[in-house]
Amino acid sequence: MPDSGGESLSHVDKAGGVRMVDVGAKPLSHRRAVARAFVWMRAETAAALGSLPKGDALVTAQLAGIMAAKRTAELIPLCHPLPLSAVDVRLEVEADGVAIEVSTETTAQTGVEMEALTAAAVAALTVYDMAKAIDKGMVVGDVRLVEKTKEDPAEAGSSKEITGEEPHPRRRGSNRASS
Amino acid sequence: MPDSGGESLSHVDKAGGVRMVDVGAKPLSHRRAVARAFVWMRAETAAALGSLPKGDALVTAQLAGIMAAKRTAELIPLCHPLPLSAVDVRLEVEADGVAIEVSTETTAQTGVEMEALTAAAVAALTVYDMAKAIDKGMVVGDVRLVEKTKEDPAEAGSSKEITGEEPHPRRRGSNRASS
Amino acid sequence: MPDSGGESLSHVDKAGGVRMVDVGAKPLSHRRAVARAFVWMRAETAAALGSLPKGDALVTAQLAGIMAAKRTAELIPLCHPLPLSAVDVRLEVEADGVAIEVSTETTAQTGVEMEALTAAAVAALTVYDMAKAIDKGMVVGDVRLVEKTKEDPAEAGSSKEITGEEPHPRRRGSNRASS
Amino acid sequence: MPDSGGESLSHVDKAGGVRMVDVGAKPLSHRRAVARAFVWMRAETAAALGSLPKGDALVTAQLAGIMAAKRTAELIPLCHPLPLSAVDVRLEVEADGVAIEVSTETTAQTGVEMEALTAAAVAALTVYDMAKAIDKGMVVGDVRLVEKTKEDPAEAGSSKEITGEEPHPRRRGSNRASS
Amino acid sequence: MPDSGGESLSHVDKAGGVRMVDVGAKPLSHRRAVARAFVWMRAETAAALGSLPKGDALVTAQLAGIMAAKRTAELIPLCHPLPLSAVDVRLEVEADGVAIEVSTETTAQTGVEMEALTAAAVAALTVYDMAKAIDKGMVVGDVRLVEKTKEDPAEAGSSKEITGEEPHPRRRGSNRASS
Amino acid sequence: MPDSGGESLSHVDKAGGVRMVDVGAKPLSHRRAVARAFVWMRAETAAALGSLPKGDALVTAQLAGIMAAKRTAELIPLCHPLPLSAVDVRLEVEADGVAIEVSTETTAQTGVEMEALTAAAVAALTVYDMAKAIDKGMVVGDVRLVEKTKEDPAEAGSSKEITGEEPHPRRRGSNRASS
Repeated sequence: MPDSGGESLSHVDKAGGVRMVDVGAKPLSHRRAVARAFVWMRAETAAALGSLPKGDALVTAQLAGIMAAKRTAELIPLCHPLPLSAVDVRLEVEADGVAIEVSTETTAQTGVEMEALTAAAVAALTVYDMAKAIDKGMVVGDVRLVEKTKEDPAEAGSSKEITGEEPHPRRRGSNRASS
Repeated sequence: MPDSGGESLSHVDKAGGVRMVDVGAKPLSHRRAVARAFVWMRAETAAALGSLPKGDALVTAQLAGIMAAKRTAELIPLCHPLPLSAVDVRLEVEADGVAIEVSTETTAQTGVEMEALTAAAVAALTVYDMAKAIDKGMVVGDVRLVEKTKEDPAEAGSSKEITGEEPHPRRRGSNRASS
Repeated sequence: MPDSGGESLSHVDKAGGVRMVDVGAKPLSHRRAVARAFVWMRAETAAALGSLPKGDALVTAQLAGIMAAKRTAELIPLCHPLPLSAVDVRLEVEADGVAIEVSTETTAQTGVEMEALTAAAVAALTVYDMAKAIDKGMVVGDVRLVEKTKEDPAEAGSSKEITGEEPHPRRRGSNRASS
Repeated sequence: MPDSGGESLSHVDKAGGVRMVDVGAKPLSHRRAVARAFVWMRAETAAALGSLPKGDALVTAQLAGIMAAKRTAELIPLCHPLPLSAVDVRLEVEADGVAIEVSTETTAQTGVEMEALTAAAVAALTVYDMAKAIDKGMVVGDVRLVEKTKEDPAEAGSSKEITGEEPHPRRRGSNRASS
Repeated sequence: MPDSGGESLSHVDKAGGVRMVDVGAKPLSHRRAVARAFVWMRAETAAALGSLPKGDALVTAQLAGIMAAKRTAELIPLCHPLPLSAVDVRLEVEADGVAIEVSTETTAQTGVEMEALTAAAVAALTVYDMAKAIDKGMVVGDVRLVEKTKEDPAEAGSSKEITGEEPHPRRRGSNRASS
Repeated sequence: MPDSGGESLSHVDKAGGVRMVDVGAKPLSHRRAVARAFVWMRAETAAALGSLPKGDALVTAQLAGIMAAKRTAELIPLCHPLPLSAVDVRLEVEADGVAIEVSTETTAQTGVEMEALTAAAVAALTVYDMAKAIDKGMVVGDVRLVEKTKEDPAEAGSSKEITGEEPHPRRRGSNRASS
């Protein structure tokens, strides 16, 4: 259970003020994170995206996600710069929208979940941009972490640190629509 | 109703290939867009964010959103660069998370909705980053456009082009959780 | 015929030192530039690029070119930032390589040829990157301007400022190979 | 001999789609690459560049190349970010243009040839930008890798992986002029 | 005399929170700003910088300043992006250091003083970087605005808005040394 | 005592030209640097900044400094890119202005002083930007290194390489005001 005090928010100083947490004393570990996002749209819009002969819209979103992953530390103010060793962005057109899954990997002193989440969100926004001329009501959502692992080269085997505990039930709660 | 053919996706060429649409012949209009996002989290997490004496976590997210708005054309491959004349990012801590609303304005040949959506998404990811040490199950969602206006200086009055038509019912559909 | 003195190099000061030329007194004109580049490669490599079912390598290069056009002023130190209104990057696989043609447009106080050339060069380098695992001897070349027009809204009609005068005969001279 | 199938293009997925190749399992090696480019121009233009009292045009191009090397992963979509340990850009004015040679070094899991090529191309474009007011027909070309080495700290000695095998004869083929 | 209330700080909201001020209703004016900085160093260091045959250190700082001016809106969170029409950075080696003067110009809805100040500061830091191997005690200071003008095209003549009122006497006060 | 010859300026070549120094042969060390800056302003301006209920102006400057530290290698042309492991920016409102102190850390082949100095300068410029509407005569100065340490993991203990030797007496010399 989380602590209710502000001092548990690692980027925030007790005395006030924000900081980039010192990770200098942590060992280098192989890190991996998997994140997802979804773009809800009209069935006709999804069909239009899917019927493109060359899949260009999806490749555009894929590349936007990959490139955004590399720039995460420029976008998220307190993120550490990380030397990404792999980024994989996959998009799938479903009946009611486009599902996105991103995995990111690095060998570093801190995790790569923000890179995966940023890539997923930017890929989703790029899908939005490609389809907005024909659908004014798309919604990007369900941006969340589904897996995060850390493998210490000095130890045997990998340890899956956390894996998307049951997502909060209200994350897509219907009462948000009226807010 | 949207056209089901790929040629309506303005960024995609009939012959295959993507492009940055030519807006050179359009007049300069005053444009405004308003977008929203929400970060679902545990009640204890929301309380921790809200109880910080100086609101630093929220200011960090606010600034991340403003700065991301200015870099939208670098992130979304086919977006036009726009000279933003105003960006406003507001965050409010609610019982189950943080609500974000962004408005962006410009005088340009094309709209600013991608700037507003990008700012909202990056502000949301920054909230996530600030709180992820105490809450592993946050979800960013409900990223959507709620208003878009275009005012032609040569004409009288403003015309509200579109305003968040009823959002798609399944955008937060519960069956996404199991995918 | 060009002047042989250094003072004709507009970015260079007579007194020594470089500068971003003042274009503040020039009128806004509609500007367009077209540039080309070519990536020479083995016939097998060209065939491999062309046979990809979804054209992904080419779309990647296309997007890299479009995004580079938008960042030209960050790369070329003395370039003015320009609000691009259109960017079009086309790639064609030929028997001995990939031909690239880029057109860029803006309404600004200075021309867009550096944007077109930068986009062409970066698209070419991206083709190189995609194929370098199977071909170690590719060469990027023939990066040049083929058209440059300026249209003054206050005047009637368009004036084609320059159009690729006969390219210098030695630009691909074979004695470069031994240098 | 290269495989003619698309699956040898390492950035391209068999199933379609592009990716940043996973290099996480590769050891850290000391890597070095050398690339070249040439800017063809009129003899008078070359003379003007060479006669500048302080060599400012060439220093500008040198710096543009160095800075571009550091931003390669932002420009080439599927490149890995690399911690460059050295970049050296040299320019020499010759009778018919400016010759550029770049060497880049790193200790990383993947090679630095794209960094060297990008620096060479951007330095060449900067020369073009500095001289375009007096010469409308310059051509940038002969952008190619001339050396690539990998030195494994765990092994004795250095191994020169590849070195500019005989460049493709048609890379500057005269029939490109008419295309 | 300045107001002592926080609401006069234009970027800060009365309700708390920061914002990018809305300049959308302001007319386009021709704007110019001039800023200065100084890098104090040992006489031997200044002599070393001045004796370089080709002035390369100073050209490097000059270019760094020009390029930083173009990126001001990325560095200063609440700055508006501006289309700079001219940037001029001058450096002069004096007996006790290097003096820097920058002028920036634009036609925009808001002033260019942050661009001039940022260019001056980054040029100064670049001088520091070039000389730090031989002088560990350099100090960058006296970064200040010396002129700011606004010229309204609709009105006759230029109006010099403010011009470096007498600088605050304590800006280089000796009691800072002991802090 | 510094050498008066140009060859001691490590970024400058004896033959002319600039370069990014090769640090590839240096061991990885834990590096830390501390830098300071000060923004002189009217007492009323300092009071206005200090009285803001939520400290937003200072958090904005803090974040601008942190983000600038991460982009130092993009701003300072010959700086090596470094994987920062910690950045801490502190601001304190004093009677006559705002004092800034930054510490940066990394494990790398070269020092982090430029990162600390860049963060301090950009934080100072951001304070300037926030307060410039009510004070036209602010001066940023005293930007200097106060500590620099290098800790070799292979050796015992830390070695403080240099620590702000007595700052040059004339760095804020009063005769600069009249220049």
